[in-house]
Amino acid sequence: MDPTRAFVKNVKRVVVKVGTAVVTRDDGRLAVGRLGAIFEQLEKLNSQGFEIILVTSGAVGAGRQRLKYRKMINSSFADLQKPQVELDGKACAAVGQNGLMALYDILFSQLDVTSSQLLVTDNDFRNTDFKVQLCQTVDSLLDLRSIPIFNENDAISTRKAPYEDSSGIFWDNDSLAALLATELKADLLVLLSDVDGLYSGPPTDPRSKLIHTYVKQKHQKAISFGDKSRMGRGGMDAKVKAACNAAYSGTPVVIASGYASDNIIKVLNGERVGTLFHKDAHMWIPITEIGPHEMAISAREASRRLQVLTSEERKKILLEVAAALEANEHFIMLENDADVEAARDAGYDEALIHALAESVRRLAEMEEPIGQVLKRTELAEGLVLEKKSCPLGVLLIVFESRPDALVQIASLAIRSGNGLLLKGGKEAKRSNAILHKVITSALPETVGAKLIGLLTSREEIPDLLKLDDVIDLVIPRGSNKLVSQIKSSTKIPVLGHSDGICHVYVDKAANLEMAKKIVLDAKTDYPAACNAMETLLVHKDLLASGGMQELVKELEQEGVTLFSGPRVNGAVSFSKANTFHHEYNSKACTIEIVNNIDEAIEHIHSYGSSHTECIVTDNHDVAEHFLSRVDSAAVFHNASTRFCDGARFGLGAEVGISTSKIHARGPVGVEGLLTTRWVLRGKGQVVEGDKGVVYTHKDLQTSNGY
Amino acid sequence: MDPTRAFVKNVKRVVVKVGTAVVTRDDGRLAVGRLGAIFEQLEKLNSQGFEIILVTSGAVGAGRQRLKYRKMINSSFADLQKPQVELDGKACAAVGQNGLMALYDILFSQLDVTSSQLLVTDNDFRNTDFKVQLCQTVDSLLDLRSIPIFNENDAISTRKAPYEDSSGIFWDNDSLAALLATELKADLLVLLSDVDGLYSGPPTDPRSKLIHTYVKQKHQKAISFGDKSRMGRGGMDAKVKAACNAAYSGTPVVIASGYASDNIIKVLNGERVGTLFHKDAHMWIPITEIGPHEMAISAREASRRLQVLTSEERKKILLEVAAALEANEHFIMLENDADVEAARDAGYDEALIHALAESVRRLAEMEEPIGQVLKRTELAEGLVLEKKSCPLGVLLIVFESRPDALVQIASLAIRSGNGLLLKGGKEAKRSNAILHKVITSALPETVGAKLIGLLTSREEIPDLLKLDDVIDLVIPRGSNKLVSQIKSSTKIPVLGHSDGICHVYVDKAANLEMAKKIVLDAKTDYPAACNAMETLLVHKDLLASGGMQELVKELEQEGVTLFSGPRVNGAVSFSKANTFHHEYNSKACTIEIVNNIDEAIEHIHSYGSSHTECIVTDNHDVAEHFLSRVDSAAVFHNASTRFCDGARFGLGAEVGISTSKIHARGPVGVEGLLTTRWVLRGKGQVVEGDKGVVYTHKDLQTSNGY
Repeated sequence: MDPTRAFVKNVKRVVVKVGTAVVTRDDGRLAVGRLGAIFEQLEKLNSQGFEIILVTSGAVGAGRQRLKYRKMINSSFADLQKPQVELDGKACAAVGQNGLMALYDILFSQLDVTSSQLLVTDNDFRNTDFKVQLCQTVDSLLDLRSIPIFNENDAISTRKAPYEDSSGIFWDNDSLAALLATELKADLLVLLSDVDGLYSGPPTDPRSKLIHTYVKQKHQKAISFGDKSRMGRGGMDAKVKAACNAAYSGTPVVIASGYASDNIIKVLNGERVGTLFHKDAHMWIPITEIGPHEMAISAREASRRLQVLTSEERKKILLEVAAALEANEHFIMLENDADVEAARDAGYDEALIHALAESVRRLAEMEEPIGQVLKRTELAEGLVLEKKSCPLGVLLIVFESRPDALVQIASLAIRSGNGLLLKGGKEAKRSNAILHKVITSALPETVGAKLIGLLTSREEIPDLLKLDDVIDLVIPRGSNKLVSQIKSSTKIPVLGHSDGICHVYVDKAANLEMAKKIVLDAKTDYPAACNAMETLLVHKDLLASGGMQELVKELEQEGVTLFSGPRVNGAVSFSKANTFHHEYNSKACTIEIVNNIDEAIEHIHSYGSSHTECIVTDNHDVAEHFLSRVDSAAVFHNASTRFCDGARFGLGAEVGISTSKIHARGPVGVEGLLTTRWVLRGKGQVVEGDKGVVYTHKDLQTSNGY
Repeated sequence: MDPTRAFVKNVKRVVVKVGTAVVTRDDGRLAVGRLGAIFEQLEKLNSQGFEIILVTSGAVGAGRQRLKYRKMINSSFADLQKPQVELDGKACAAVGQNGLMALYDILFSQLDVTSSQLLVTDNDFRNTDFKVQLCQTVDSLLDLRSIPIFNENDAISTRKAPYEDSSGIFWDNDSLAALLATELKADLLVLLSDVDGLYSGPPTDPRSKLIHTYVKQKHQKAISFGDKSRMGRGGMDAKVKAACNAAYSGTPVVIASGYASDNIIKVLNGERVGTLFHKDAHMWIPITEIGPHEMAISAREASRRLQVLTSEERKKILLEVAAALEANEHFIMLENDADVEAARDAGYDEALIHALAESVRRLAEMEEPIGQVLKRTELAEGLVLEKKSCPLGVLLIVFESRPDALVQIASLAIRSGNGLLLKGGKEAKRSNAILHKVITSALPETVGAKLIGLLTSREEIPDLLKLDDVIDLVIPRGSNKLVSQIKSSTKIPVLGHSDGICHVYVDKAANLEMAKKIVLDAKTDYPAACNAMETLLVHKDLLASGGMQELVKELEQEGVTLFSGPRVNGAVSFSKANTFHHEYNSKACTIEIVNNIDEAIEHIHSYGSSHTECIVTDNHDVAEHFLSRVDSAAVFHNASTRFCDGARFGLGAEVGISTSKIHARGPVGVEGLLTTRWVLRGKGQVVEGDKGVVYTHKDLQTSNGY
């Protein structure tokens, strides 16, 4: 649930308004599919105990459609030659209201819902008795779980130009809905339209962003509302006016699309759909003020300032970050204690904060990663090409781990000249907030604190994932589900590993003592790590020789639970494994027998996750066969899978381990946060159909260091 | 349109069957939203002149729901204590049929469609007169544009167990629909269900793939149909039996989901939705036999065989490819002529084919790209880590360019040990087919011809884009639209550039003669290239000095049309540019004035596409300011943007130019087709809480060459 939508928890009475563009199709006929989907939602909410009041448009349109047809069949051919006069709006309304209510009644009947019809005019509301009476009637209907359906009684309204006049107590169905929401003391008003909500510009302009929370002070003048809705009288301006009226009278309003088949349910679940109008919106957390888009743009601007600093200046920033961590240890521990109390996790002490600061200092001392000349080529006389390392730009990191990760990632970003958007887990919310504050306060004004943005709500992630024009890389550090969800919902490249199903294969030519040591370490050194062994593959000869039984005994002695594959079944008695593609993340593993090394490789390719695999053997050729054929990020000979780690590999800090093949594979250090730029320096050379220069393509020495 | 669905062009009479799981919701009530959406489609098709016949289920379910309610309100509290007997199916059918038809009638009425009801039993069909009569009745109804709605007359059917008996002329509504399709000589039968079609395994198993075209000989035994549909009597087995009956009697059948709101329209547009049954399916192009998934798996297996060959062996393959191209030049020219005739393109001659073969030979001579040790580190005594280059795996290349690209890409794939799936443009269909055949015939049996797969239909692309477990990289070479579409519909990484909006900035300190030469070359050397200049930025001082006017004159003399930005408006009179973010791809460009270099950089960052930018200046500091700050793939000083190209950069063959920052940026050669693998060789070392070894992290010499 979005924090700005938390008020929905207390909603009981809801007014839902369906606009003409929702009720009617382009050709003027009723949109029976859309209406059916909306009514199914209303039935569901009604049966859950919500009090539903429906305000509908569409009678005039539906009536016009019917009358046109009627008029046509009553016309002679001669009549049809004459210029056609526009049909009377009031007559259309009278005819249309009938058909509309007949359809609504049968649809609601099918869903076992009783509906009721209430036609009102502006004039009615001038009478105080009327208002009291209306409230009582509606209360009675809602007590009976009937859904009252309101519409303006257009056919008998005395307003002069009912479709243009925007004066009066209400002037269209949006304002009628707002008025009813207020008078009937509804807890929420949902205005369903043909657009997703209120945009910062015309909805057709790709640069327009959906406004999730309308803040009058901020948006009133900044927004150009674009054209009126496809159909119906109420344009966006009128909708906003009506929504503000209701919101400031105390009924929050959401404008959302009536085209999606589950938007009302989503709104009532507190999901971030459509545009919310709430009287307290201006007082909410700053995040609604600085939208994710502005946050990403600011991070990019700051990163561009950061990357033109000298290497010394960037180093100095990191040293200041380290000092700030130590200077603020008291506050960090305080906030961390509050988190820890809830999470039963280990808390921070001075030693840990000092260690964190030290790791930042080590990064400060690291060799300058950006501006390195990786390659230098003379293309032609006086035309020299350089390939230089440079920052990616803006990174979005979603992490579910301990707040240490925030410090590590922020320091890596500073070292590599990148802007950063961070979203941490809610268990560490306060620790993340204080660490973020401490680190950004240490950033010099020349760069700006907005280099690193901290997101506070999970609901902002979908918006950020749309910003493929500003964010260059997403690194999710968390569950498989998180990684997979992010991958399928963004065009931005994603770096990460979804599974860590690592194998150890013990060959027939293995030194058995070595095998025991490696297998034990691979499983038990840290069973929940992604580089821990999940499946032990054993050569068939070790079953006959008793070697397998020794391995099993060793594991069982250390408390490891074994699950067997089909070939082990019978030979040794364990529980049967359901699937080989399984990450236990605990002191448990699968064991299976293979006939030879190629079967072992085949097994790894079929069921593994291309993370880390190990062969234990004393046969050099067999080892090389394995190392050259296994298609995983890391392949080891006679060494524990647990070595697969940025620090153990000597890469300094680690962003994560990638099992994708693109950009960076295996443990990813600062390299994964860099890209390259081609810089060409000439003296006026042109291509001229490749006759402009004589190509030499001579490799030149690179003098590393900018 | 999918070639296997081309028959829909001749479809006029369509039988549509909606199953119980489509008509009814989980709670037994009618799914009014879904039905509305389906009826809207039927109305659309009806108005377009299609003859629509509807077969519906759902009466029994709907009736049971009503009778339960009725029974409950007629029960005493004592009655409710007794065990409840199951309601009579026939009674349910009788009650339900009424409610169902009342709803259908009002929904269709709203859409101005007249519907009609036809209840039939198995027995009726035993009478030959009945069949003749039925055809006449239906013809009459269709002539009046009424939609006949069929259902089994369950209430009066004499079958013993109407819901389990699968003997007789028909035994459920699927077989009724198939029977009607045949008897009424329909051109198509659409069976709408709650699944997307027929799967190769249970639809809940992620490894199951949707079968787009059912081939009896291939699928009858291979498929496990999984469980029955959520509701209703007809399981998938029964559906397949009915579908085969209709298909082999001459009416093609599509099984598709009734949950999507536009599937019927899609089927009639020839889109690849659901599963098609067609009596000629077994004779169609082999692609329906080898699905895209199998094709990708085969390419991966072949690539694994390819990459363990020696460097010499891979080189030999390329030399044989080159020889095969020359040996088959006659056939290649023949097929190319056929394409060219349609496309008015330049054809192939011996010289061109020889040049192509020569480019393959140059690749053969290239330094071995795979198995290179990029880094070697001693982690601890006797524990050595190597970072080695290796192939990505399987590439999917979608190209719209000339068939030369096929040869270039296939050779690059062979050189870099990758499997390849190719999809070319249809203008070069025959040329691509012959080139693919010639190249794959030259592959040795140890690798296999399936290393390179050629896709023949655009409709297969969406299926391929789902295979993120097999395909490692997608490279679209074509329009912006193609690249953007692919990016948003796959989890597989995509490499490519969507726009090429390149800038030349002429500084106040520019040598004007040099500027003229560079600007002219950048725009006119090949105006449609992605590295051609689209926007010319000029320092404001050049307006006063007349330098800008000289540049303009130079461009106009060469026939370049200029469009002006707001600052130029008035100063010189051109047409106004609508937007700075525009790629002309022709002899046209935008011109704008900037006040200083930072404004030029700001302009490039705001409106460019991060491809290639150039500064013309004699001021060294200004040039370095530009080179270090512009965030594009390539930044040039005093050289034409046209130099941004793999061949001119000396990279050998080029896969394309990437404007994304991940993996490869700018012109991409063989490097972009490689990844790395971490290889660790030990002597039994374990991590043991980082006390297992003493880390040394010593950089060792790399001896390049495997």
